[in-house]
Amino acid sequence: MGTRKMKKPRKDVTQREIVTAKEISSRIKKTAEGMVKEISSNTDPTFTTQQRGKSNVVWDDDKGYLELGEKTITRNFLNVAHARKFMQTTMIMSKASDYLNHNKTASIREIYYELKHTIEGTKENTFEGQDESDPVIVDLEHSVNTIREKLNLHANPKGTLYGNIILKDKMHFNDEFNASKLGRGGWSIMSRVEPEEIEIVETDADYLLVVETEAMFERLIEEGFPKDNHCLLIGVGGQAARGARRLIHRVHSELDLPTYVFTDGDPYGWYIYSVIKQGSMALAAHSEFMSVPDAKYIGMTIDDVKTYKLENVTENMKDGDIKRAKEMMAYPWFQNKEWQDQLKKALTQKIRIEQQALANRKLDFVATHYLPEKIGNKDFLP
Amino acid sequence: MGTRKMKKPRKDVTQREIVTAKEISSRIKKTAEGMVKEISSNTDPTFTTQQRGKSNVVWDDDKGYLELGEKTITRNFLNVAHARKFMQTTMIMSKASDYLNHNKTASIREIYYELKHTIEGTKENTFEGQDESDPVIVDLEHSVNTIREKLNLHANPKGTLYGNIILKDKMHFNDEFNASKLGRGGWSIMSRVEPEEIEIVETDADYLLVVETEAMFERLIEEGFPKDNHCLLIGVGGQAARGARRLIHRVHSELDLPTYVFTDGDPYGWYIYSVIKQGSMALAAHSEFMSVPDAKYIGMTIDDVKTYKLENVTENMKDGDIKRAKEMMAYPWFQNKEWQDQLKKALTQKIRIEQQALANRKLDFVATHYLPEKIGNKDFLP
Repeated sequence: MGTRKMKKPRKDVTQREIVTAKEISSRIKKTAEGMVKEISSNTDPTFTTQQRGKSNVVWDDDKGYLELGEKTITRNFLNVAHARKFMQTTMIMSKASDYLNHNKTASIREIYYELKHTIEGTKENTFEGQDESDPVIVDLEHSVNTIREKLNLHANPKGTLYGNIILKDKMHFNDEFNASKLGRGGWSIMSRVEPEEIEIVETDADYLLVVETEAMFERLIEEGFPKDNHCLLIGVGGQAARGARRLIHRVHSELDLPTYVFTDGDPYGWYIYSVIKQGSMALAAHSEFMSVPDAKYIGMTIDDVKTYKLENVTENMKDGDIKRAKEMMAYPWFQNKEWQDQLKKALTQKIRIEQQALANRKLDFVATHYLPEKIGNKDFLP
Repeated sequence: MGTRKMKKPRKDVTQREIVTAKEISSRIKKTAEGMVKEISSNTDPTFTTQQRGKSNVVWDDDKGYLELGEKTITRNFLNVAHARKFMQTTMIMSKASDYLNHNKTASIREIYYELKHTIEGTKENTFEGQDESDPVIVDLEHSVNTIREKLNLHANPKGTLYGNIILKDKMHFNDEFNASKLGRGGWSIMSRVEPEEIEIVETDADYLLVVETEAMFERLIEEGFPKDNHCLLIGVGGQAARGARRLIHRVHSELDLPTYVFTDGDPYGWYIYSVIKQGSMALAAHSEFMSVPDAKYIGMTIDDVKTYKLENVTENMKDGDIKRAKEMMAYPWFQNKEWQDQLKKALTQKIRIEQQALANRKLDFVATHYLPEKIGNKDFLP
C-alpha cells in the first residue's frame, strides 16, 4: 500500500457542510429574540418550523433524494393547544444553546433527562417522556435549518469502519489514526462525525463498500478483501445509524469515492440501501447531509440465487417482507425496471437470500468470486 | 499519562487460557477416531457430551460462578432418534477441523450455510435451520472441553473499548494500537478475542469500568473520565456479547484490574451485571473463560434515587421487569442482603432508574460526582 497515492478530501465539500457552533447558536438566539420582541410588543409569541409527515415529503428526481416540501407550521404560545409544546421548544432551544456555547454534546435521551422536572408550584412535568422531547428537537433542527448533530445532539452510535483511511479527531488530542491498523476490529463509529470535529485526512482507497451485517464485515476483513482490493469497509449492523450515514455521505462526497452497498437480498436489506442512497421519509429534511444518490447496489439479488447456485440456501419470505415489498414497489425511487423486476421476483418466488448464504459455496467465495465479479462487470442495481 | 508505569499482563493466566488450534483439532480427531474404531469393530458409534439445561447447571459458591454439573449424554448413530443429530455432529466436527487446520474462522451463521445441502438421492436437508446447527456446536464445545471461540467459531461482534491500553492483533500484521488514541470512537471489539490472536500488551489503568449503554460510554469519554481517573472503559451495548465478555474477563484476570459494572437500575441491567460476574445458565459450561467473580456493582441502585435526588426521573417498572426481579430474588447468586434489599425495594416502589437519568443533575454529574464518590467510598454492591 505504501506506494499508492494517498487522496485528500475535497475542501469545497467540507466547507459547505461546516457550520460553526457559534453560527448555529446565533440562529437559535435570533429565533428567541423574535419571541422576545413579540412579547415586548404585546403580541402572541410564535415559533415556525417545517411541516413533517408524508404530506410534506417530496421526492426530488433531479437531486435523487427525498426532501421536505415548503409547508410550514406556526405555533402560538397563547393557543392552549400549542402552549405546552411551545414551552418545551424554548427549553430545548436554551439547552442546545448551552451545549453549543460550552462545547458539550448530549444524547437525545440525556437532554430529555436534563430538562425533565416538575414545574414549581404545579404538578405538571416539563416532559412526560422522550416521545415529547424528540419531536421538539426535530422542530428546532428544521427551524434553524440544520441537523441535530450541529445542535450537538446525537442518538446512539452504531457501525464500524475499516480500511486504509486516516481520520483525525480535533476534539480529542488531535488523534490521528489509520482504520486499517486497528487489528481486525476496526474503528467504532461515533454517534456524531461532523467535519468540524472529525477530519478525513486521506485515503488510498478506490471505493467504499457498505455492508449490512457486522458478521460479513468481519468475513471480508479476515479474507483480506479491503487490502487486496483497495477499498474501505463500513459495517452498519442493520439499518444504518445517523453517525454511520454521515460518515458514508462524507467519505463519498469529500473523497469522491464510488459507494457500493451490500445487503441481504430481501426487502429489509433493500430498504437499508435505499435509506443510505436516497434518505428516509422520517429524515427527509436531512437528505442533503445524509444521502448518497450515486450509491450503487451490489447485492444480494434474487437473480444471484440462480447465478451463484444458492437454491439450497434461500429462506422463505415472511408476511412482513411481503407487505414491505409491495409498499416499496410504489415508491417513486424504486420506479425503475431493475428494482421493479427484483421486487416482482421476490414476491413471485416468495424467497429471500442472505449475504452469509454465499458461505454455502465456500467461506471465501464472497471475497474471491462474488464481489470481484460484480465490481469487475459493473453488475449493479441502480 | 506518560510518567505512569505501564503494567504488563500476567503470563500465567494467559498460558492457562491458550490452547493451540492444533491441540483442539487433535481433540476433535480423537473423538472421530473413536467413532471409526467403533464402526470397524461393528459397534454402534457413539458421541458423548455434557448434559445442558437447568437440571445440570450448578452454582459453585467457592468459584463464584455458574457451571455445568457432571451429567453427560451419549448419542448412538443407530438409534433412529439420534441418527440425524449424529450426522450433523460429524459434519460440524469435520468443518471445525477444517477451519482450525486452515486458520479460518466463521460465524455460526456461516457454518450453518456452508454445511446446508440436500443429501444426494434424497429430499433430506443436512440442516433445516440455524436452530439445528447451533446446539450441535455447543455439543462439540463441551465434548472437546473448550469454548466455541477455540473452534474458530463466533457469533456477532458488539461492544467498544476505550482507554490507555495497548492491544496487538497477531493475525493482522501484528498491529499494535492504543485504545485511547482512536479519537472518541474507540476500538470495535471483535467477535473473538482469544489470547492466541489478540495479545494484551500493556496498560496504565487502575481499573476497568464496564458500561451498559453506548451513550453513557460516549458521555464518559466526552467528560475525559477515563483519562482523568486512569481507567479503561468497555461499552457493552446491552447484554454483553461473547467477545466483550471474553475481553472483560481477560483484562481482569491478566492485568489484575478491579472491574466495576455500571448499568441501568432495573432487573435487566442487574442481570447484565450478574452475567458478566457469574455467568449465565445458557453458557454455564464456559464460566471459567467468561466470568469475573470479583466484579463489583457500582450502580444504578434504587437507593441512588434518594441519595442523588433523582425522584423526578424514575420510570415505572413494566410487567416484564417485575417478573424478572421475582425470578432473580430466588437465584443462589443473588442470595445476599444487599441484592435482596435492592430487588425488594424495586418491587415495592415499582420504579427503575436509568444511567442517563443522572443527566437530570447535570450532564457531567456522572463523571464529576457520581462515579468518583462511589469509587472513593467503595460504595459497591457485591
